[in-house]
Amino acid sequence: MKKISLLGSTGSIGTQTLDIVRHQPDRFQIVAMSAGSNVELLVEQAKEFKPQLVSVATKQLADQARPLLPAGTKVTYGEEGLVEVAAGTDADIVVTAILGSRGLPATLAAIDAGKTIGLANKETLVTAGHIVMQRAKERGVAILPIDSEHSAIFQCLNGERRGDVLGITLTASGGSFRDRTRSELEGVTVAEALNHPNWSMGAKITIDSATMVNKGLEVIEARWLFDLSYDQISVLIHPESIIHSYVEFIDHSIIAQLGMPDMRVPIQYALTYPERWTTPTGRLSLAEIGKLHFRPMDYDRYPCLRLAFDCGRLGESAPAVFNAANEVAVARFLKGEITFLDIERVLETVVERHDVCEIRDLQTINEVDQWARSLAETV
Amino acid sequence: MKKISLLGSTGSIGTQTLDIVRHQPDRFQIVAMSAGSNVELLVEQAKEFKPQLVSVATKQLADQARPLLPAGTKVTYGEEGLVEVAAGTDADIVVTAILGSRGLPATLAAIDAGKTIGLANKETLVTAGHIVMQRAKERGVAILPIDSEHSAIFQCLNGERRGDVLGITLTASGGSFRDRTRSELEGVTVAEALNHPNWSMGAKITIDSATMVNKGLEVIEARWLFDLSYDQISVLIHPESIIHSYVEFIDHSIIAQLGMPDMRVPIQYALTYPERWTTPTGRLSLAEIGKLHFRPMDYDRYPCLRLAFDCGRLGESAPAVFNAANEVAVARFLKGEITFLDIERVLETVVERHDVCEIRDLQTINEVDQWARSLAETV
Repeated sequence: MKKISLLGSTGSIGTQTLDIVRHQPDRFQIVAMSAGSNVELLVEQAKEFKPQLVSVATKQLADQARPLLPAGTKVTYGEEGLVEVAAGTDADIVVTAILGSRGLPATLAAIDAGKTIGLANKETLVTAGHIVMQRAKERGVAILPIDSEHSAIFQCLNGERRGDVLGITLTASGGSFRDRTRSELEGVTVAEALNHPNWSMGAKITIDSATMVNKGLEVIEARWLFDLSYDQISVLIHPESIIHSYVEFIDHSIIAQLGMPDMRVPIQYALTYPERWTTPTGRLSLAEIGKLHFRPMDYDRYPCLRLAFDCGRLGESAPAVFNAANEVAVARFLKGEITFLDIERVLETVVERHDVCEIRDLQTINEVDQWARSLAETV
Repeated sequence: MKKISLLGSTGSIGTQTLDIVRHQPDRFQIVAMSAGSNVELLVEQAKEFKPQLVSVATKQLADQARPLLPAGTKVTYGEEGLVEVAAGTDADIVVTAILGSRGLPATLAAIDAGKTIGLANKETLVTAGHIVMQRAKERGVAILPIDSEHSAIFQCLNGERRGDVLGITLTASGGSFRDRTRSELEGVTVAEALNHPNWSMGAKITIDSATMVNKGLEVIEARWLFDLSYDQISVLIHPESIIHSYVEFIDHSIIAQLGMPDMRVPIQYALTYPERWTTPTGRLSLAEIGKLHFRPMDYDRYPCLRLAFDCGRLGESAPAVFNAANEVAVARFLKGEITFLDIERVLETVVERHDVCEIRDLQTINEVDQWARSLAETV
C-alpha cells in the first residue's frame, strides 16, 4: 500500500491525483491532504478518501470544515498545517500540488522527514533549486517530477548513465495563442487566454503557457532536477503535445516519451516509480493521429522564455524574482488590471530593476519575492 | 579495448561497423573478420584493421587472398572458417552481419564460446529463435540487436521491468514502393525496387523492405528477442524513418527511440552497451524536419507481412520455410526471372504447401530450408 500525503487536493493536479487513487483503492491510500479555501470540495474528498489529517488556509476555514468532516479527521490550518500534512504523517510520498511559493517550506519539511517528493510545485525548484536539491541529496530523498515534460525526461533517463546525456528538449504546445502573431496579441481577453488547446489545467498555468513563462519555469526546474547546464536544455514547439519531451545522448540517439495529453500518467508514474501500474487513461494511436508537427522556438515571439533563460543563467535571486513578478502579473491580468502583453512588460521591468543577490536561505527568498511582488503590482 | 569479431565485413552492416571502429581506434579492435567472395575489399580492410584472422567462402578464394594480406594474418575458409572467426578468437563481441541462414551455426558457436552477440543476421532468430535464445540463456550470453528497429526497442526497455510492457510497435518506412497501389506494382523494375527512400542497405534487404517481408522477419525476431507474443507486436507505417520503433507500457506511457536513419548508431550501441559513446553520425533536428507522418499498416497492400505473422504464430518450421522461400524469390526477382508481385505469390505457394513440423535441431532446419528452396525455384 502506497501512503500518500497530498498538498493541494482541490486543484487540477490534486483532483487528478485523487482520480488515480480512486482507480486503485487497494494499492494507494491518502493519509493527509491540504486545500486552500475550497472547503466544500475538501470535505467531499475527505468523505471519499478518509485521510487522517486535513489542512486548510486559515483557522476560520478549519472551524468551518470541522463539523462537516468524517469523525476522527484531524483538521489543521495555515503554514503550520501545511507542514504537518507534508511531514507529520506516515506517508511514503508527498505530492506537492499547491501553487506558488507557499509550497517551499512544506517541501523542505517533507524532505527532512525523509519523504519521497512527487513534485508538482514549480516554484520549489525555481526559487530554491540549489537548497532543495542539496537537502534531498543529504537526506537521500528522491524528487520525482510530476510535470509531464519532466516526467518524460525522467522516464527517458531510465537505465541510462547521466554522463551520456548530450542534452534535453522540452516540448511546448505554444499555448492558447500559438497561431497568433505578436500584433494579434493586442487586446486578447482572459477567456481567450484560458482556452488551452491540449491540456486541461488551472488558470495560472494556462496563462503561463500562453506567455511561455511556464516553459521558462520548466527549463529552470529541469536544470536542477537533472543537473544540467542551460546550454543542454532546448525548447521545441510541438503543437500536438504528443511527444512530451526527449533526451539526446552523446551517440545522437534520442529517447522520447509519448502519450495522450493526460496528467494522470506522469502523476501515477511518480507514485509508482520505479514500477508502472495500469492507468485509466486513453491509449495513444499514432496511426489515428497521423501527423506530428514541430517548429523551432521563436524567442522574439515568446520573449518571456528568453528572459527565463537569462534569469536561470544569472542564477541566485534572479529566478525567484522572475517567478514572483510573474505571479503578480498573471493575477493582475486575470483581474483585468493589465493586458496580456503587459505581463511580459511587468516581468522585464522587474527583472531589469533587480540587483541579483545570493540566496542563502528561505528568508532571502522571501525578501526578494516580496520586493518583486511590490514592484510588479505598480509597474 | 573492445575486441570485435566481424562476420560479413564487406557487406553494408560490415563496412558500417568498420567505420565505427575507424572513428574510435583506441577503444575498438577488430580481431577477426569474414567475407564471402569480395577478396579485394577484404584485403583492403585487413590492411587497415589488422585482424589476426580472416575467412572467405572457399579454399580458392583463401589462396587468392593469402599473398595479398598483411604478414601474420591467418586465412581460413568455408563454414569451418566462419565458425573459427565467430568462436576461435579472444573477441568480446561477435557481430553477425552475414546474410542468410549461413549465419546460424557460427552464431551458435559464438554463443557456446561465451561471446556477446551483436545480431545483424535476421535468419538466426527467424529460423531458430527458440534454439538460439535457449542456448544464450543457458550460457548467460547477451544477444544485442543491431537492426535499427530492435535496437530502438532494446534502448526503450532500458531500466524498465519487462512485465510492465504492454506491447511494441515496429515502424516501417513502407519501402521503395510505398506510394504505389497494388496495381501500380505490376511490372516494376529491379532498379526501381532497389531505390529505398531512407536507408542505404544491401539489395536483398531493400527488396524485403518493398515487399514488407523485412518487417515480417523483424516481427518474428522481436518475438524472440523480447519474449513477446505476436499480439504484443504491431507495425506502423512511418515514411520518414525517424521514430525507429517504440514500446508501450501498461500505464499507456510510450517510450520511443528516434534519430537520423544511420545504421552506425544501432551498430555502435550494440558494441558499447550498456554505455553510449560519441558517434560520427548526424544529429536529428525535429525543428528542421518539421513533420512526422504515420499511417496504419495495410495488410492487403502488404500481404507478405500478414503471411509473416501467420508463419510466426504457426511457429516451428513455418518461419524457416517463409524465410527460405523468400531468399529464393528475391534472388529470382533480382535475376529478372520473376516479377516483383511474383515474390509474394512464391511465398504464399510454398508456405501453403508446407506441413509444419517440429524444429529440434539445425538438421531439421536445413531440411525444411532445402525443401522450401527447391519448391521456390520452380513455382
